[in-house]
Amino acid sequence: MYKLGADEEAMRWITSANIACGFHAGDPDIMDRTVGLAAEHGVCIGVHMGYPDLAGFGRRAMRLSLEELTNCCIYQIGALEAFCRKHGTAIRHVKPHGSMSNMADTDDAVAEAIVEAVILTTPRTALLARPGSKLGKVAIERGLPVISELYADRAYCADGTLAPRSLPGAVLHDPEEAAQQAVRMIVEGWTKTLGGQRLNIHGDSLCVHGDTKGALDLILRIRAGLEKAGIRIERR
Amino acid sequence: MYKLGADEEAMRWITSANIACGFHAGDPDIMDRTVGLAAEHGVCIGVHMGYPDLAGFGRRAMRLSLEELTNCCIYQIGALEAFCRKHGTAIRHVKPHGSMSNMADTDDAVAEAIVEAVILTTPRTALLARPGSKLGKVAIERGLPVISELYADRAYCADGTLAPRSLPGAVLHDPEEAAQQAVRMIVEGWTKTLGGQRLNIHGDSLCVHGDTKGALDLILRIRAGLEKAGIRIERR
Amino acid sequence: MYKLGADEEAMRWITSANIACGFHAGDPDIMDRTVGLAAEHGVCIGVHMGYPDLAGFGRRAMRLSLEELTNCCIYQIGALEAFCRKHGTAIRHVKPHGSMSNMADTDDAVAEAIVEAVILTTPRTALLARPGSKLGKVAIERGLPVISELYADRAYCADGTLAPRSLPGAVLHDPEEAAQQAVRMIVEGWTKTLGGQRLNIHGDSLCVHGDTKGALDLILRIRAGLEKAGIRIERR
Amino acid sequence: MYKLGADEEAMRWITSANIACGFHAGDPDIMDRTVGLAAEHGVCIGVHMGYPDLAGFGRRAMRLSLEELTNCCIYQIGALEAFCRKHGTAIRHVKPHGSMSNMADTDDAVAEAIVEAVILTTPRTALLARPGSKLGKVAIERGLPVISELYADRAYCADGTLAPRSLPGAVLHDPEEAAQQAVRMIVEGWTKTLGGQRLNIHGDSLCVHGDTKGALDLILRIRAGLEKAGIRIERR
Repeated sequence: MYKLGADEEAMRWITSANIACGFHAGDPDIMDRTVGLAAEHGVCIGVHMGYPDLAGFGRRAMRLSLEELTNCCIYQIGALEAFCRKHGTAIRHVKPHGSMSNMADTDDAVAEAIVEAVILTTPRTALLARPGSKLGKVAIERGLPVISELYADRAYCADGTLAPRSLPGAVLHDPEEAAQQAVRMIVEGWTKTLGGQRLNIHGDSLCVHGDTKGALDLILRIRAGLEKAGIRIERR
Repeated sequence: MYKLGADEEAMRWITSANIACGFHAGDPDIMDRTVGLAAEHGVCIGVHMGYPDLAGFGRRAMRLSLEELTNCCIYQIGALEAFCRKHGTAIRHVKPHGSMSNMADTDDAVAEAIVEAVILTTPRTALLARPGSKLGKVAIERGLPVISELYADRAYCADGTLAPRSLPGAVLHDPEEAAQQAVRMIVEGWTKTLGGQRLNIHGDSLCVHGDTKGALDLILRIRAGLEKAGIRIERR
Repeated sequence: MYKLGADEEAMRWITSANIACGFHAGDPDIMDRTVGLAAEHGVCIGVHMGYPDLAGFGRRAMRLSLEELTNCCIYQIGALEAFCRKHGTAIRHVKPHGSMSNMADTDDAVAEAIVEAVILTTPRTALLARPGSKLGKVAIERGLPVISELYADRAYCADGTLAPRSLPGAVLHDPEEAAQQAVRMIVEGWTKTLGGQRLNIHGDSLCVHGDTKGALDLILRIRAGLEKAGIRIERR
Repeated sequence: MYKLGADEEAMRWITSANIACGFHAGDPDIMDRTVGLAAEHGVCIGVHMGYPDLAGFGRRAMRLSLEELTNCCIYQIGALEAFCRKHGTAIRHVKPHGSMSNMADTDDAVAEAIVEAVILTTPRTALLARPGSKLGKVAIERGLPVISELYADRAYCADGTLAPRSLPGAVLHDPEEAAQQAVRMIVEGWTKTLGGQRLNIHGDSLCVHGDTKGALDLILRIRAGLEKAGIRIERR
């Protein structure tokens, strides 16, 4: 699985898309177009829920009460689901975006509030969560399916968390290097951390940021690498 | 049926509520609270869809393309529906608000775009529409149930349309007068127009604006009047 | 000095008003009306800058970068200043609202970012700051006039900070008690803390929340108390 | 004069920039960056005021009351002015955007409301207006300087108005053709209308849309054409 913006060309090569719902990005028309495009290409649709912060693209920390956070997610899930219905498709997974996602990695209560929203609205839907995150742990405890998500273009720390963007080397700008990391994690189950150590890591899904320059190129390289390793990429 | 804001006391006396969805008023937390309150009291829930204009409370004309208008409605329907699911209830009807409603009274294409949104998301849901409106006409043509809505506190013109708010006498400020008009329309099927003529008019629903001063008093007077006329008020 | 909403009656009895700028509350029309009302009554106008969070009324923590925070304040100062010019008046002071204010109490960098915005736009304008706050300290260091602000309706801790709203007794709901605290702080320079100790505290300004129930009553009681103590209340 | 987005490269070649103020596009950080860039390159800064409609990019008609429209403009002028002050520069002109601009072309009352906002805040600032527009007429009547603006990439009708975007041929997609029209209007004072007739037209400013593909290329071609005709391009 990959994460992508509303790029028609990219949509041909990914197997799932996380779609923003108007809070940190997107609006009804963009959602309609992106859902339509995904449906047309058989790409799985995920709710990409963010904080209500268009100017900050949802990447700024906000401290909502847990009830507010749950409501904020419920609203976005509902809005996207209606567009899925219009296009004869359905939500396949849910994934918090940006700062909400970072907080859900380490904060049990935030993870709980997000999982609660999913259970109250689309109770059998899978959560995309990073390996080792609180979000994944809480989702499993509450009985939700969890899809472990790996990042092609981000460096990892020794404990399996993503290296913060503020550190040099945290983002892999070279598409070849990113593609290699992606393929190695999927095929061999490990990667090299920012500190140079070997980290065993496993995942079910590979994320590529749709707003990254060269995202399409990266996707194509990852596909080529996976196929060369004998892995067949399919849409479910 | 009546239309009301999130007033706990009023919720006890009305049979349906139209709930704003964050575009012209409301936000996820207010929606959650209002839907919860309605569910608790057995009040029927309607989607009150408005233009994206918080500052203007959706009462300013906006010219969206028909596709934008449909998407704008789909989004709001979906968002409210998710809160209904949370509270174990469902959307019972749909009603445009303010300027969107005014345009749907007289403009076939606007009416069509709204009806399209309902058909694409909640295809068996009733539309609340004013008698004689394009919205009602289009909804019937497209096979949707239509509930004719009468206004207790607004004066009518000879052709059955609402007298524009800009005319003196267009709003009935005296609750007794408004209650009398409401009861007369329901029980006897007519009212006196702003010009003083007799107008035959029939409806299935009575609307009271939740942001009107004295709304609760008006509701109680209407209930008393209807009960005196032998009409039993029930929730479906 | 007092802080108040756009209440015409209250405007007659206060000497200064902090006006929201559309980020946590307000919009161009409300700003126009409130500034006009203040100008008419000779009430001093303050910029009440908040986080961009209408749904949360600016009371939720947001983590903007320091540059974003400065820009967020610059924008709001400019917008309000334009309405002041329309009404032939000017900004007299600046005061952060809600969560931004709380963070500026204790966080040097946040205080610095706010003070920077004032210096870049209205460089001789006073800052309203709580006694002992980082905001007041930084403003003085950067050469801005500071007005110490006391709260009539909030209980204090032993270190002079406001007791958090989550503690029982943190908000003085009884207007007589709040008025007494206000008058005692101004006239005698002390108050009793939430823990029952005596706290010496001095201030130049008294704040009353415009959205508090009974705000007008509280204002009138404070005025009466101050006048009884021989203090004449004037507008500058 | 040209109109441009926040493109660093383009900023080197234009002489003035119209900057959005957060209503139809932009936010405090983008405004800060764009004003800073313009100041650094000596580019004249204009307020690009739009309707409060981010999703529609201000290109959808909205019917604000005249007072609301004036307030909407005052707010945006003030916000941009504060960033100009930060960067040691000032507003040089004012120009409505999108749908607001279209309405000001033909509607006296809308033009009046916009001009009123300028007079109440930046009373000596020039208005950019299309030749023959109501906006230009009203501005002159009210004593404001007016700069006539021509469009390089739009076709004209016989009466001097812009051909509506819905007509085929209304937008000149070929940069060479657009550059030729621009140069011909400035140097020879005429152009060929969409209908093929000769139209005499004069202007003081040339507008290029910053969001058009190939905007930079178009700017460079126009500059080359003007310079070839012996016109020296300077910043004031």
